[in-house]
Amino acid sequence: MTDALSIARDLIRCPSVTPADAGALGVLENALNAAGFTCHRVTFSEPGTADVDNLYARIGSEGPHITFAGHTDVVPPGDESAWSVGAFSGEVKDGFLHGRGAVDMKGGIACSVAAVLEHLAANGGKPRADGTGSISFLITGDEEDVSINGTIKLLKWAAERGEKFDHCVLGEPSNVETLGDTIKVGRRGSQSGTLYVDGVQGHVAYPHRASNPVPDISRLIVAISDEPLDHGSAQFQASNLEFTSVDVGNKANNVIPGEARAKFNIRYNDNHTQASLRELVETRLTKACGNRIRARIIWEPSNSNVFVTKPGPFTDLAVSAIEEVTGRKPELSTSGGTSDARFISSYCPVIEFGLVGQTMHQVNERVPVVDLEKLTKVYRGILARYFG
Amino acid sequence: MTDALSIARDLIRCPSVTPADAGALGVLENALNAAGFTCHRVTFSEPGTADVDNLYARIGSEGPHITFAGHTDVVPPGDESAWSVGAFSGEVKDGFLHGRGAVDMKGGIACSVAAVLEHLAANGGKPRADGTGSISFLITGDEEDVSINGTIKLLKWAAERGEKFDHCVLGEPSNVETLGDTIKVGRRGSQSGTLYVDGVQGHVAYPHRASNPVPDISRLIVAISDEPLDHGSAQFQASNLEFTSVDVGNKANNVIPGEARAKFNIRYNDNHTQASLRELVETRLTKACGNRIRARIIWEPSNSNVFVTKPGPFTDLAVSAIEEVTGRKPELSTSGGTSDARFISSYCPVIEFGLVGQTMHQVNERVPVVDLEKLTKVYRGILARYFG
Repeated sequence: MTDALSIARDLIRCPSVTPADAGALGVLENALNAAGFTCHRVTFSEPGTADVDNLYARIGSEGPHITFAGHTDVVPPGDESAWSVGAFSGEVKDGFLHGRGAVDMKGGIACSVAAVLEHLAANGGKPRADGTGSISFLITGDEEDVSINGTIKLLKWAAERGEKFDHCVLGEPSNVETLGDTIKVGRRGSQSGTLYVDGVQGHVAYPHRASNPVPDISRLIVAISDEPLDHGSAQFQASNLEFTSVDVGNKANNVIPGEARAKFNIRYNDNHTQASLRELVETRLTKACGNRIRARIIWEPSNSNVFVTKPGPFTDLAVSAIEEVTGRKPELSTSGGTSDARFISSYCPVIEFGLVGQTMHQVNERVPVVDLEKLTKVYRGILARYFG
Repeated sequence: MTDALSIARDLIRCPSVTPADAGALGVLENALNAAGFTCHRVTFSEPGTADVDNLYARIGSEGPHITFAGHTDVVPPGDESAWSVGAFSGEVKDGFLHGRGAVDMKGGIACSVAAVLEHLAANGGKPRADGTGSISFLITGDEEDVSINGTIKLLKWAAERGEKFDHCVLGEPSNVETLGDTIKVGRRGSQSGTLYVDGVQGHVAYPHRASNPVPDISRLIVAISDEPLDHGSAQFQASNLEFTSVDVGNKANNVIPGEARAKFNIRYNDNHTQASLRELVETRLTKACGNRIRARIIWEPSNSNVFVTKPGPFTDLAVSAIEEVTGRKPELSTSGGTSDARFISSYCPVIEFGLVGQTMHQVNERVPVVDLEKLTKVYRGILARYFG
């Protein structure tokens, strides 16, 4: 059975909590092999992390090349006794397919596989009847946890093999309330750092012999976070800096401490690069310090750069396919957290469109069976337009 | 031998590191018993602390009643191999008496006992030849550590027996550079508290759903500590508030925390009582919070109230005695940390005058023998004027 519901059910029945595969990639491999795909199972390792299996499957050898990306790993079910059906049962009840991963994102993968198989069947087993075009799947088992042995390495592996992707659809649950309401076309970048302020330790009874870093770091926190980093851009909301912790750890209430530190995280839009963002914050810091306060920032390494897939033919055909199936004109959104799209965006334009995210990561994660059918139709519409 | 040097040497040879007595109080008891004092050894207990011995000795039954206060316990010697003589040897070398407690404050106690014995010998064994007047000693073995089973309880015990003190001389090392430079006539109060700010926890990617307490507590720290609490008083420097720590303890840099807290300590002068001081800080806090920030202060219990012995006949006669012996006019100081004078001040006016503090708590603590002789003369001068 290669309909979306059957594939999704088979996937849910594999308890593939990161980093376990539990047979999930094999479900896809079997279906894709049968349809003529060339499949590669690739295992990546890193000291200190578990080995993780990944799957790359392609049909066709010419462009244009569209790839469907996704992950078969899921977050843990939590308290299984709180579920109304087994978390890995894949049971259909009251019109819903239940189970961990139903929307995030085994359901989404199942729809993309089903749509591709239908598309191939309608085109003589090829992406295009004339033999051009390629379709591939980039599927990882390492997205929900550390994301070290997953998409980031699979993309590098594919590039080293000479694989070139023209466009990507990532089937993460992009919709907020109803299928068709949202395509994610980008994500803000994320950059963390720690602000250190040096004082001079001393006794509270003799403050003139000490220099207290606590009011100084407080002043810097206010100065750095008070003024907006920007006022948004065409496709993004305003960048935002949040101090997430401030710490001294001094237990002696008769001692003025010698150092204070504060951690912050910035979610930034396409007004900035990582380098220009750091410079902006450092400039603000220098100004707030004046000649008196001694402070410095240690920046954390970040692989979450800002990215955006600009409006154009690719987003247009996705919007058109979504409108045709759902009757809704989706918002092109750049809000929310990170996903593997941050890695894919370095290789080709990527959009995220999948199921409705409401029950993801929760007890009783579930998807309306009708949504699986609709999403499959949307993906078919995308393929038809892409290769039409 | 009842001269100051002999008594001091006998005391130093008792290794009375808190809470050990090691025979120190017995040295004093023997000398005072022989001179006609009625002596009481009083042991105080408290769960979780060691029992500590104290000594109360009095001669005379009428006023005026002057009491000499002090402590026979000492801080540990530290690395004894770093001492040029044994830390408890009481050796005299190059004109100095060496050993732990030489200045803090076995030397000071020895001078007061020697001065009192000389005074009594010169007055027919009585404080005054006419039989009026009383002299007493309030000596504890619990000052250098937690100060729980010491002076605070001995004063209460004495009050319950009906003891009334008119004036007190505490022989702590009050002088900064040279004998005669400083009388301590008061101490600032000490009050600690913790400021808590409530926020709303959330994800950094969705700051509009959270409320970050870090910039808020930063604003409050600046607002509370920026404006002086006062500009000093006739006998005190300005009160001062120091934030000694600010802590959140959030390790997740994608999470806006739900709470922040900051610890502070205030050293305050006689412009304030504990109650008025708390009200002043709370008023500032309320103003800085406005209608938006939710914050509160938890105050710590404090037994370090501000006190001062106002200028008048008692300080005048001490100044006069010091000038006569040392040729210096001492400063009436209220600076520095706390001492048992904070407890005594609730019962009678107290001044602190003793040796020079430079080597206290250090390796090679020592006192010039000539200082012991001079301090004994100062105390004799105080007694002569007091009962004259």
